[in-house]
Amino acid sequence: MRETEPKRVECVAAALNRSQIGITVVLSRYWPNTRDPGRTHKINHANRKKKERKKRATERRSWITLPLGNGGWNPQLYRSFGSLATKVERNPSFSSLNSDDLSYFKGVLGDKNVVQDEDRLETANVDWMHKYKGSSKLLLLPRNTEEVSKILEYCNSRRLAVVPQGGNTGLVGGSVPVFDEVIINVGSMNKIIAFDKVSGILVCEAGCILENLISYLDNQGFVMPLDLGAKGSCQIGGNVSTNAGGLRFVRYGSLHGNVLGLEAVLANGDVLDMLGTLRKDNTGYDLKHLFIGSEGSLGIVTKVSVLTPPKLSSVNIAFLACEDYLSCQKLLSEAKRKLGEILSAFEFLDCHAMDLVLNHLEGVRNPLSSTVHNFYLLIETTGSDESHDKEKLEAFLLHSMESGLISDGVLAQDMNQASSFWRIREGVPEALMRAGPVYKYDLSLPVEKMYSLVEEMRARLGQSANVVGYGHLGDGNLHLNVSAPRYDDTILAEIEPYVYEWTSKHRGSISAEHGLGLMKANEMFYSKSHGAVQLMASIKKLLDPNGILNPYKVLPHSLCSDS
Amino acid sequence: MRETEPKRVECVAAALNRSQIGITVVLSRYWPNTRDPGRTHKINHANRKKKERKKRATERRSWITLPLGNGGWNPQLYRSFGSLATKVERNPSFSSLNSDDLSYFKGVLGDKNVVQDEDRLETANVDWMHKYKGSSKLLLLPRNTEEVSKILEYCNSRRLAVVPQGGNTGLVGGSVPVFDEVIINVGSMNKIIAFDKVSGILVCEAGCILENLISYLDNQGFVMPLDLGAKGSCQIGGNVSTNAGGLRFVRYGSLHGNVLGLEAVLANGDVLDMLGTLRKDNTGYDLKHLFIGSEGSLGIVTKVSVLTPPKLSSVNIAFLACEDYLSCQKLLSEAKRKLGEILSAFEFLDCHAMDLVLNHLEGVRNPLSSTVHNFYLLIETTGSDESHDKEKLEAFLLHSMESGLISDGVLAQDMNQASSFWRIREGVPEALMRAGPVYKYDLSLPVEKMYSLVEEMRARLGQSANVVGYGHLGDGNLHLNVSAPRYDDTILAEIEPYVYEWTSKHRGSISAEHGLGLMKANEMFYSKSHGAVQLMASIKKLLDPNGILNPYKVLPHSLCSDS
Repeated sequence: MRETEPKRVECVAAALNRSQIGITVVLSRYWPNTRDPGRTHKINHANRKKKERKKRATERRSWITLPLGNGGWNPQLYRSFGSLATKVERNPSFSSLNSDDLSYFKGVLGDKNVVQDEDRLETANVDWMHKYKGSSKLLLLPRNTEEVSKILEYCNSRRLAVVPQGGNTGLVGGSVPVFDEVIINVGSMNKIIAFDKVSGILVCEAGCILENLISYLDNQGFVMPLDLGAKGSCQIGGNVSTNAGGLRFVRYGSLHGNVLGLEAVLANGDVLDMLGTLRKDNTGYDLKHLFIGSEGSLGIVTKVSVLTPPKLSSVNIAFLACEDYLSCQKLLSEAKRKLGEILSAFEFLDCHAMDLVLNHLEGVRNPLSSTVHNFYLLIETTGSDESHDKEKLEAFLLHSMESGLISDGVLAQDMNQASSFWRIREGVPEALMRAGPVYKYDLSLPVEKMYSLVEEMRARLGQSANVVGYGHLGDGNLHLNVSAPRYDDTILAEIEPYVYEWTSKHRGSISAEHGLGLMKANEMFYSKSHGAVQLMASIKKLLDPNGILNPYKVLPHSLCSDS
Repeated sequence: MRETEPKRVECVAAALNRSQIGITVVLSRYWPNTRDPGRTHKINHANRKKKERKKRATERRSWITLPLGNGGWNPQLYRSFGSLATKVERNPSFSSLNSDDLSYFKGVLGDKNVVQDEDRLETANVDWMHKYKGSSKLLLLPRNTEEVSKILEYCNSRRLAVVPQGGNTGLVGGSVPVFDEVIINVGSMNKIIAFDKVSGILVCEAGCILENLISYLDNQGFVMPLDLGAKGSCQIGGNVSTNAGGLRFVRYGSLHGNVLGLEAVLANGDVLDMLGTLRKDNTGYDLKHLFIGSEGSLGIVTKVSVLTPPKLSSVNIAFLACEDYLSCQKLLSEAKRKLGEILSAFEFLDCHAMDLVLNHLEGVRNPLSSTVHNFYLLIETTGSDESHDKEKLEAFLLHSMESGLISDGVLAQDMNQASSFWRIREGVPEALMRAGPVYKYDLSLPVEKMYSLVEEMRARLGQSANVVGYGHLGDGNLHLNVSAPRYDDTILAEIEPYVYEWTSKHRGSISAEHGLGLMKANEMFYSKSHGAVQLMASIKKLLDPNGILNPYKVLPHSLCSDS
């Protein structure tokens, strides 16, 4: 066996059985960050969009985009393939852009930050899944909070609708215009304002790209409590506005726990300073939570402060195979108890997801034997002592092998192997995109119920589509994806509303971490009580009486028609 | 040295220096829960209040209580010693109780849950510090959400003000009436509704006493992510409503991160179901956060779901001495990095606090040498492997001894010793109470600035009072207490507004975990921007247009005068 091969779990087991006194083989090595940042899959919009534009010309596509130039008062119809019969009319109370507006914006931002270039607008009008397309004629690039404030104050007084856009990596049509909304992108506001090494508190502008923050903190000896596949493009302001979940959630929890403060600009231009940098602050209602996860519909987040934990020196990654879902569940319970304080990721993919990754992504191989396994798990530990962590992980794996929960497994021995394991898990969305049209669902369900939905959906759709399940098992978060030969209303009708009804019946959430955006705004009732939805609408009305902020998103359209 | 003596840190150091291979002495033993629940200091209201009533008769007290029977329309003045010139007038828009009201409540709740007994009302009218006293004539004890809903719907229609009361252990006058508000106590709603052992999610009614939940979870192999001195009396609904912090915050973080869902009854009686049991749910605005920490002013919390981590088998506790505050800070930074994932408490008290504990609490002794040290620290670790945890803690302590950060220290060897260490830290508030009148402040400050305020206050007050500093160093949470021979406006004028101005200047919070209640409602502006306070007032108006819920609390009185 070459040194660079991942260590087989059965070898560990054999070694442990031979000598019960301890582990002598070095199974993993220290590496400074979980994955090699150079290897992360960046969503490079400029290049991707060019390629996609070429591709689009030759491809039959059933997703219907809005006709450009629908900035007038005539109601327009909109439909996306993601949700059956999604129909939105342009809110007639919104104004349309005129030359005075452009002059005003140029006066505030300078000519070059008032973008009317068609190519740039085309990119900004389309989401990265190419599922939603707006027809905005204007992209504004403010450089500071004051400029955001001036823009919004003006738009509010003129009743010009706006869509806040970060890295535009959202999956539910929340970050692109539906009609002719003015796009506001705070990407130029990308400064790190302060970092306190005693407390680990980072304060930065909303336009900072997540991966840059991760690297910055890594150099300072700290960790960003948020990590996700789109980190190369997504911005922290967007992450906070969508309450992004991601890969470290199982260890560090939600942004509601990690964001200590934020600054947001309200629809009327008022700057709301909630930029606390304290772990504890019980002085009145904790308003920042309203802006975490409200998808830019209550205000535009301009600054953020985040509590970051110290970087711990030891990271270990195992890639395992299980033959049934019950074993995956049992392994999770065991891991929570046996790995307890060091568990930092517990991800899963089924064999269908693995097939897609192996068939569509270059250079990716299955580190386990060629036998097809039904489920694959990626387990990561992060701790302060390498030998302790290895001992814990190996004891856990040995026990899991002996009890038959795992059928095969490998431990990464260096950073390259760790990256290659992560590449499999993180590569699933990309592989699905390459495979063709895909219907994506992001569900929160009780862990024991989670995979039943995948199986039921598979039975329901039969040969007409490839049903794939993967996601953050440790958080009860399933990414259910249906890969089909074409976008087709017949298939869609088989999926929706069934998937939402099923989720609702099991008291799950129809959006675990992606948000509602345009795609699921009308489906909110599947996961929220009528009283709660009504109160949300009242709060929206209170903060944004003209409804200019990210209209048609988040809240059911029936509740926003008067705004 | 007897086996039951705590292990001196210097002995560990000596042992380690002798043989670098490892630790052979067993320094701590497994115990199932951090502290012996039987030993926790319960705030037993019934007994305490009786004793206090006797004591009061013979004591001169300068705190002015409200005259009983001020239920009419004449405005009353109210003053407490805790805040200079706090003056509140009874809101003239509130009705007073009449016999029809009593009949209605008896019809809904049954006679015995409509309490008019004077003794019981006297207890419910006074906070546990004896600092605030209301003159309510009615205590209601609903048994379920429906009853809470009927009570509130009625009170709202009649404009009868109410005060939600849990264990009544608050420190800022938030849980007692100011005038004649109807007291609603959900203590009879104390059922555990469900516990999911796979996910560790607990669903229970709001009246469950925290200590009972801690014990219940302990038996199930899980841990409540919240623990505080008042656990024997306080209720989970009150904990959530006040966003209680406490002793496990450094490990598990805020209730905003741990509470997954809740049910609350609004002022108009509407039941708002937000009782999700999912780790992730991004379907719309996360409204539950409005009710976490709003001190019952937006709704009465009736049910809660909480994420509880698995109980880990190894708990170690060290009690240490430092000679200066800078060493305490450095030790915290070191502990976060070296103990990382297993650190579960980092508490401190200064020598003045230690003196009080030793002089006023029976059976408490300093486990360290008789030399007076300037600062004492309690460090707790909780992890899944006893030998690993001990190794980490001992290596950390050895290093800290060698670098001169610690001047002395002991490690608990069994549960009794662990309890005795915790008793010192948790006994400080009780010792202060026994020492006489005390002005209490609960501040959040940058760790490096925290103790300067104690020193400045000590210099400012000179011989007139004993200034004591203790608290949750790991969270930057200082409990600044001024123990004085009497309640005195001269002393108060030296403390306030100085303490608030100082805190504000250093971007701290004037209430880290206690809330604002009546005591600090008017001081909110020291920690919150005008825009944020205005928005809070608008949200209050939206949810409770008649202002019947916990009036005169939380929000500055000037903003609520029209409600």
